[in-house]
Amino acid sequence: MIIVSIGNEILYGKTVNTNAPFISDQLNKIGIEVQKVITISDQKSAIESTLNQVFLESDLVIVTGGLGPTKDDITKNVICEYFKTPLIIHQPTLDHITQMFKDRGYALTEVNQKQAEVPQNASVLKNNNGTAPGLWIENNGKILVVLPGVPFEMKSIFTNEVIPLLKKKYDTDKIIIHKEIITAGIGESNLSDLIETWELSLPEYLSIAYLPKPGQLLLRLTGRGSKSQENQLIEELASQIVLLKKIASKHIISTENESLIEVIGKWFIKNKKRLAVAESCTGGYLSHIITSLPGSSQFYEGGLIAYSNNVKREILNVREQNLKKHGAVSEFVVNDMAINSMGLFDVDYTIAISGIAGPSGGTPEKPVGTVWIAVASPTNIVAEKFNFGTQGGREVVIQRATQSALYMLYNLIKNNY
Amino acid sequence: MIIVSIGNEILYGKTVNTNAPFISDQLNKIGIEVQKVITISDQKSAIESTLNQVFLESDLVIVTGGLGPTKDDITKNVICEYFKTPLIIHQPTLDHITQMFKDRGYALTEVNQKQAEVPQNASVLKNNNGTAPGLWIENNGKILVVLPGVPFEMKSIFTNEVIPLLKKKYDTDKIIIHKEIITAGIGESNLSDLIETWELSLPEYLSIAYLPKPGQLLLRLTGRGSKSQENQLIEELASQIVLLKKIASKHIISTENESLIEVIGKWFIKNKKRLAVAESCTGGYLSHIITSLPGSSQFYEGGLIAYSNNVKREILNVREQNLKKHGAVSEFVVNDMAINSMGLFDVDYTIAISGIAGPSGGTPEKPVGTVWIAVASPTNIVAEKFNFGTQGGREVVIQRATQSALYMLYNLIKNNY
Repeated sequence: MIIVSIGNEILYGKTVNTNAPFISDQLNKIGIEVQKVITISDQKSAIESTLNQVFLESDLVIVTGGLGPTKDDITKNVICEYFKTPLIIHQPTLDHITQMFKDRGYALTEVNQKQAEVPQNASVLKNNNGTAPGLWIENNGKILVVLPGVPFEMKSIFTNEVIPLLKKKYDTDKIIIHKEIITAGIGESNLSDLIETWELSLPEYLSIAYLPKPGQLLLRLTGRGSKSQENQLIEELASQIVLLKKIASKHIISTENESLIEVIGKWFIKNKKRLAVAESCTGGYLSHIITSLPGSSQFYEGGLIAYSNNVKREILNVREQNLKKHGAVSEFVVNDMAINSMGLFDVDYTIAISGIAGPSGGTPEKPVGTVWIAVASPTNIVAEKFNFGTQGGREVVIQRATQSALYMLYNLIKNNY
Repeated sequence: MIIVSIGNEILYGKTVNTNAPFISDQLNKIGIEVQKVITISDQKSAIESTLNQVFLESDLVIVTGGLGPTKDDITKNVICEYFKTPLIIHQPTLDHITQMFKDRGYALTEVNQKQAEVPQNASVLKNNNGTAPGLWIENNGKILVVLPGVPFEMKSIFTNEVIPLLKKKYDTDKIIIHKEIITAGIGESNLSDLIETWELSLPEYLSIAYLPKPGQLLLRLTGRGSKSQENQLIEELASQIVLLKKIASKHIISTENESLIEVIGKWFIKNKKRLAVAESCTGGYLSHIITSLPGSSQFYEGGLIAYSNNVKREILNVREQNLKKHGAVSEFVVNDMAINSMGLFDVDYTIAISGIAGPSGGTPEKPVGTVWIAVASPTNIVAEKFNFGTQGGREVVIQRATQSALYMLYNLIKNNY
């Protein structure tokens, strides 16, 4: 199984390809392993030569991109030439497009009508979220699936149309089960050392992968087997995770495929506690990560982006003497921020962050990357100083500070402090 | 030129590949065009067969990933087998790693020491930001560059070491110049219709690409030519952009490769005005986009994440009667939020957002995706209602609301309202 992603915007790096990973992951779950993902430009010659090549290597090819209404979208035409088949109007699609434009109150343009043209040899996969339908073409025992490049259009066609068709076609006996283990507070090589003996003792049908992201490290345990062994495999994975937990308990946040904020959110909802934040250098990113969680309004009261010292002083009542004597990036100031935001927002728990995200603003004493974080509960306050360096730039400092703050909150609610 | 990205985490979709787009973009700037990007798993057979294949198609191959310290990192070993060369200790790298660990106060483990082993036939590219060095291998007139998969490590080696070496090797006569045109307030197909005549009249050495992102549409004009024609090409691009601006002036935010927030930031700094925000459904994302801009503290005072109605009422003084009668997602409430945050933060301009990001919380009257946005200046306030639908999910509603809010602020400061 090969994925072909078409588009200059992806090849030239102006758009990050999120489609191919989504497709691989979904296929993986139904036991289809992706051999490779090939990204090419939207030039005719590139598409043609790639189609020729991939069908030598695989019986199933999924193509995304180049189905849009503009002139650089040529996938459909190249496919027609490849299969020597004409483009024809697909009436249900034309009706759907006409209705979509009517609903939105826009005029239907000629360009949009062309979206209803499909290769004659294709079965049409309905696109509920857009104008370009997906295509399913079978030829000489090989299958070509063609999907639009817009992620939410592609995802809905893939989930609703392609997966059921593939399940029917490839009634494979193989299964692949992933268990994701969320860790925190430890780096990749230290974790690797810590769990080495366990890792080396894994049977060969189990494998482990390290998936590092800024401030976060995911461990994935994968089991492979046949469908008849599913229960056995699930048990084996579970018992391996029990062993792993014994070795690295304090760094394992969850084994239920939950992110750190999901684990925290569940605890807050269960314990009927409320949370607020006061952010300086992270500038809203911490609040964004919290509110990205659906249902976060059940425990998240709100936050203050105390970006200027004025806001810290006037709205958050950070003491002038602390700002003057110790500076905005100091234990004194984040403690003031954490305690005072508890009163301002009338909540049980708070997080406060103040630091230097860069690229400028550093001093010899407090270089770029220096971040103070405080977390407070009704009975406790803990502050910690971090240095996230300058290597990853502003973005990485913001991400790492956010993840570290959530890990501190996690330790506070789990009474690890 | 072919890029090979190695890693299960990328192939299985748990990590998005940002390395390949970065490399393509950088190479593009020095006139090297990327033919394709191939993503494969970190299995020995996959790496071997891909190396065999890509060198048939190209003289230059850049590989990323699989150089880390853990057991699933096998790239170096496979490369040694491919070139029939042994791994040897590279002393300067070992010294560098030893120093790095000393600086951070960590113990140097055996696993980390292995990072200093390199194929004997490789030139070593220093990694200032990590332990795994890059590799440059020349063989039979072909070049293989191998880089770590961690983005900020890869980027720094690529920029500091690989680009200068490639420039020396490939003293090509070709140049590629990109001009990016930031648009707002118009969709892809409508813009395509609007500029169709202009687009069709472009000479064949100029091409245009549409790069849609949620709530944002980038247009890229690309010119290709030889180095001797550089000035001519630059002039031609500039005069085409003048023509384009005449056709679509109100939707063209910038032709200087600046994002909407950069354009806004420049205006605020130049005019010595200050900005604050009051966010509900966007939950900090607007503030995050503003503060992602280096130097944003020069104009951004701060923000309030007024997530609960309590916060809207108690801290922002939103009138109880407006909340009761019209609901939190209403023109009355966002107007209160915009006006009162002007006083709370003592600023000249404010943005207020309140909406239903979903997946729950919708009503027949105000379905998920309904968002009210207000922008206020010292003399004007404008509110607008949007419906961003449910198709893209919570994330897309948040992104679109944020971009729409910035576009409204842009129109306010440009006096388009």
